[in-house]
Amino acid sequence: MVQQTEFSLPPFKRGFHLITDIVKDNLPDLPQTGVMHLFIKHTSAGICINENSAAEVLSDFNTFFNKLVPEGSELYEHSEEGKDDMPAHIKSVLTGTSLQIPISGKRINLGTWQGIYLCEFRNNGGSRKLVVSIVS
Amino acid sequence: MVQQTEFSLPPFKRGFHLITDIVKDNLPDLPQTGVMHLFIKHTSAGICINENSAAEVLSDFNTFFNKLVPEGSELYEHSEEGKDDMPAHIKSVLTGTSLQIPISGKRINLGTWQGIYLCEFRNNGGSRKLVVSIVS
Amino acid sequence: MVQQTEFSLPPFKRGFHLITDIVKDNLPDLPQTGVMHLFIKHTSAGICINENSAAEVLSDFNTFFNKLVPEGSELYEHSEEGKDDMPAHIKSVLTGTSLQIPISGKRINLGTWQGIYLCEFRNNGGSRKLVVSIVS
Repeated sequence: MVQQTEFSLPPFKRGFHLITDIVKDNLPDLPQTGVMHLFIKHTSAGICINENSAAEVLSDFNTFFNKLVPEGSELYEHSEEGKDDMPAHIKSVLTGTSLQIPISGKRINLGTWQGIYLCEFRNNGGSRKLVVSIVS
Repeated sequence: MVQQTEFSLPPFKRGFHLITDIVKDNLPDLPQTGVMHLFIKHTSAGICINENSAAEVLSDFNTFFNKLVPEGSELYEHSEEGKDDMPAHIKSVLTGTSLQIPISGKRINLGTWQGIYLCEFRNNGGSRKLVVSIVS
Repeated sequence: MVQQTEFSLPPFKRGFHLITDIVKDNLPDLPQTGVMHLFIKHTSAGICINENSAAEVLSDFNTFFNKLVPEGSELYEHSEEGKDDMPAHIKSVLTGTSLQIPISGKRINLGTWQGIYLCEFRNNGGSRKLVVSIVS
């Protein structure tokens, strides 16, 4: 059986943001055992899982990705949508657009230190749409 | 319930290629609500989701990945299968080998700008095999 | 229907390690058709799929990722947990924390050359916990 819901995040500024609680607030009652799928319907933002406690981890991610995928009009042919656009597409592929997390005992079964990140790669990405599918 | 089908892509040249329509042509009738899984059975090609309209995005992806993971016999121990081989393995891990896309209202629920890419990292990768699993 | 099991890997040293057989040993009887989900409950290790035969591929992956995400106290704000910690978080996002593999004919349907890797990014990561979910 698959239950599904779609919801929007508030706009976040460019960077990595912990959204575990927002995702949980948008979940239906979870089954005893299952799999939660999370999907982001965008090509210049990503979702991933990483450390849920230290704020510097989030800013270090932002610093690293900005360095790994630099901006610069001479680097990309696709530049008409802004110099942060093509780098955002590339970063989105590197982080990914979907997550799957086991559901155990009616809860999403993340490790102690794991949280869900929104990776906002545009300067003004606006609200982002997510789809949750619960398989049981 | 899980429906499954395996199919082959025609050979594509090295680079990123939009294959959304080919994938759709190989889908069975979709359920009202579900999840589509796509899996590529190879280690030197990947699949990912990104922009479905501008051709320069695809070529910029190719340029970026070629720069990020350079070829060169001095860089890798594993070189007997050609100088594009080990870089192709690395790129395949960076892009990923599986996708999951929600199914909503009997259609795959991609965002407006999202398309499915084959990432062909070999110079002569030949035909690639994909497995689609539909969970409902 | 979703069957689920959680198990621990023995400690592995820093690097990429083939764990296909360990995963198989921890699977329940598989259904005729389905999807296997594998999830790692950690933020400084990852799982991915790649070449299952040449040992140099595994060491080349290690070399590449160490170069792509360098260590250095000046590069990251988050350094209190060791200089291998923040790079491990970043590498974990690049490789990913979950896999999905089709199940066909009661077997996981990997390509001929595909194997499952544990990507251990800490110097002393210890035992790592995985969750397997079988959807059928």
